Amino acid sequence: MRTQVAIIGAGPSGLLLGQLLYKAGIDAVIVERQSPDYVLGRIRAGVLEQVSIDLLDKAGVGQRMHAEGLPHGGIELLFKGARHRIDLEGLTGGKHVMVYGQTEVTRDLMEARSAAGLTTIYQAGDVTLHDFDGAQPKVRYTKDGQTHEIACDFIAGCDGYHGVSRASVPESALRTYEKVYPFGWLGVLADVPPVSHELIYANTGRGFALCSMRSAKRSRYYVQVPMEEKVENWSDAAFWAELRNRLDPEAAERLVTGPSLEKSIAPLRSFVAEPMRFGRLFLAGDAAHIVPPTGAKGLNLAASDVGYLSTAFAEYYGEKSPVGIDTYSDRCLRRVWKAERFSWWFTSLMHRFPETGEFGQKIQEAELDYLVQSKAASTALAENYVGLPLV
Amino acid sequence: MRTQVAIIGAGPSGLLLGQLLYKAGIDAVIVERQSPDYVLGRIRAGVLEQVSIDLLDKAGVGQRMHAEGLPHGGIELLFKGARHRIDLEGLTGGKHVMVYGQTEVTRDLMEARSAAGLTTIYQAGDVTLHDFDGAQPKVRYTKDGQTHEIACDFIAGCDGYHGVSRASVPESALRTYEKVYPFGWLGVLADVPPVSHELIYANTGRGFALCSMRSAKRSRYYVQVPMEEKVENWSDAAFWAELRNRLDPEAAERLVTGPSLEKSIAPLRSFVAEPMRFGRLFLAGDAAHIVPPTGAKGLNLAASDVGYLSTAFAEYYGEKSPVGIDTYSDRCLRRVWKAERFSWWFTSLMHRFPETGEFGQKIQEAELDYLVQSKAASTALAENYVGLPLV
Repeated sequence: MRTQVAIIGAGPSGLLLGQLLYKAGIDAVIVERQSPDYVLGRIRAGVLEQVSIDLLDKAGVGQRMHAEGLPHGGIELLFKGARHRIDLEGLTGGKHVMVYGQTEVTRDLMEARSAAGLTTIYQAGDVTLHDFDGAQPKVRYTKDGQTHEIACDFIAGCDGYHGVSRASVPESALRTYEKVYPFGWLGVLADVPPVSHELIYANTGRGFALCSMRSAKRSRYYVQVPMEEKVENWSDAAFWAELRNRLDPEAAERLVTGPSLEKSIAPLRSFVAEPMRFGRLFLAGDAAHIVPPTGAKGLNLAASDVGYLSTAFAEYYGEKSPVGIDTYSDRCLRRVWKAERFSWWFTSLMHRFPETGEFGQKIQEAELDYLVQSKAASTALAENYVGLPLV
Repeated sequence: MRTQVAIIGAGPSGLLLGQLLYKAGIDAVIVERQSPDYVLGRIRAGVLEQVSIDLLDKAGVGQRMHAEGLPHGGIELLFKGARHRIDLEGLTGGKHVMVYGQTEVTRDLMEARSAAGLTTIYQAGDVTLHDFDGAQPKVRYTKDGQTHEIACDFIAGCDGYHGVSRASVPESALRTYEKVYPFGWLGVLADVPPVSHELIYANTGRGFALCSMRSAKRSRYYVQVPMEEKVENWSDAAFWAELRNRLDPEAAERLVTGPSLEKSIAPLRSFVAEPMRFGRLFLAGDAAHIVPPTGAKGLNLAASDVGYLSTAFAEYYGEKSPVGIDTYSDRCLRRVWKAERFSWWFTSLMHRFPETGEFGQKIQEAELDYLVQSKAASTALAENYVGLPLV
């Protein structure tokens, strides 16, 4: 098989890239290790920046998002027992974010891809990348007991942190930066109405909590737990009790509980691999960088990578210009590091860090006090939360 | 001897309090362990906020400061080899800071006190505080082989971190918060023209550097050094070479060197003791809190404590109102924690921290990039640097 761009991974990054390339008249094949159902079953992020909304519109898959997604013009910060609203819209000249689950984005992209008759090879085993340091890269995989090869001009590695793409790069060519946080997020998804119509980020003596949602009827809640905590130790009742303990009295009273649809513990990590291009292999999204989920930047960073990459390929094929592909890594990384900085900062501000002690807690409270009182500081939070402009 | 307020310590806090009380018609005696020359010989901070300038004017000692001090409307941040100006004046609606050495402030206050014929007991030995939990506190000290006692209404502890005032409070009544930074500042004072007319704060691969000054002819420079470094290991030549290495090429070329008038290593520490009042004993300045010097908040925080305290005493004696003294600790601490937060943040942003590794360095660079590009983030820095308003 031959294609222009072989995309590794059919998560939202790979699917969005496929759709943007299709719109640009560029041929692409997606290779995915898992089944479609498995991909759809992964519960992930749910907050889209304007940049991501624009890209989904450009890819022609924004219709359901606009109909069913919830535009949010603010968030609430809960600390020292009281909630304070950050007016994202007022502080950023009218920008907002859209609450729309990653699962829904993935579903919309899968349906568009299927409707357009584009090729996605699911359940591809033993995927390997070859010759991306030359002019004729290849992707090999096994399926139904047979080995297949895709010859291509470029490979786009959209296969996440554990994927084969970054692992195919010689270690000596990669520089990596990493921070592992000493706690995790215990998350519950439940079909109950959200406790508030906006997200609540809570800094409490018992640790961080986040009240989020996927829709007006489906809530997504998280509580900070020690890194070594096991999900088996958390009954639904124990989770709801702990969450309620971290809310202000009004929210605690309004909290509606119900059986969990999903319950899991996610570790928190900051990670960046540089560069994001190796010859004809380009990394995008989690394959190149991970942010802790505080601030919801993961999916949005993946989308902006894919935005830069689709434009670069369009310039290469349309205008015969290598500028886009040559500047891809630097352009992405400038934006990536700003989002890494924001995610690290917001994580550091909102969680209990045993190692910083009582001094650390007092500094957090002083910063939160300052943040909600200072227009400049609130604006800095807001402009990062809605997403810094593409440059 | 009897007085209304016994002030412990004749540094800038104690002297300023004495002068403000004198203006308010309140009798005070200052007790100081050291000699006047020793006090004047301590080389300390040199940047005054508007709040401090106003208090020195109110105390009637602002004349020489206005004539000789250097108003600064901006600072420069140096990182990744280039300098970026933060326009303090433009970002804060016209506010600025004043470069005027703490030694000069102290001298002006000493001269005003002496001119007014007010009592300062220098070289007072074995100072002890008594009965401040009752209505009739006393201060005892020895001088010329004799024990003396001052009976007073109130004691103001302005005697710094190592002073007797905080040490006189039962440990069970104090809550303390502390962070010690894993490095120090090696500082040199020299009669050479400053390398730039504004302060330069430098984040470099070799560590932090600060180019500051006391006047147009006297410079104060610092470089970050490991905590265990000894000043004996640093010749003047070695200091100048290291400083030059941490500057951008243009500044390095313009740097004028000369013999050091003073050379020392200062540790960096964040410290807060709560509360700041115990019966009739009130702590002010370094006796209650320490900030790392990045951001120059130490003297300014002491001045605002003293401002609150002089107002509280004036209300007590003038209007027979205990409100000021009853709210003193809370009012101070709100402002103290905001300045602690800012000093911790600016210190964390500008220094090399071995324990955060390369990820930490990249995050610093991303934050600095963001800071100089975002008006909101620049404004947050500027409004803290010129000093948050008194509330």
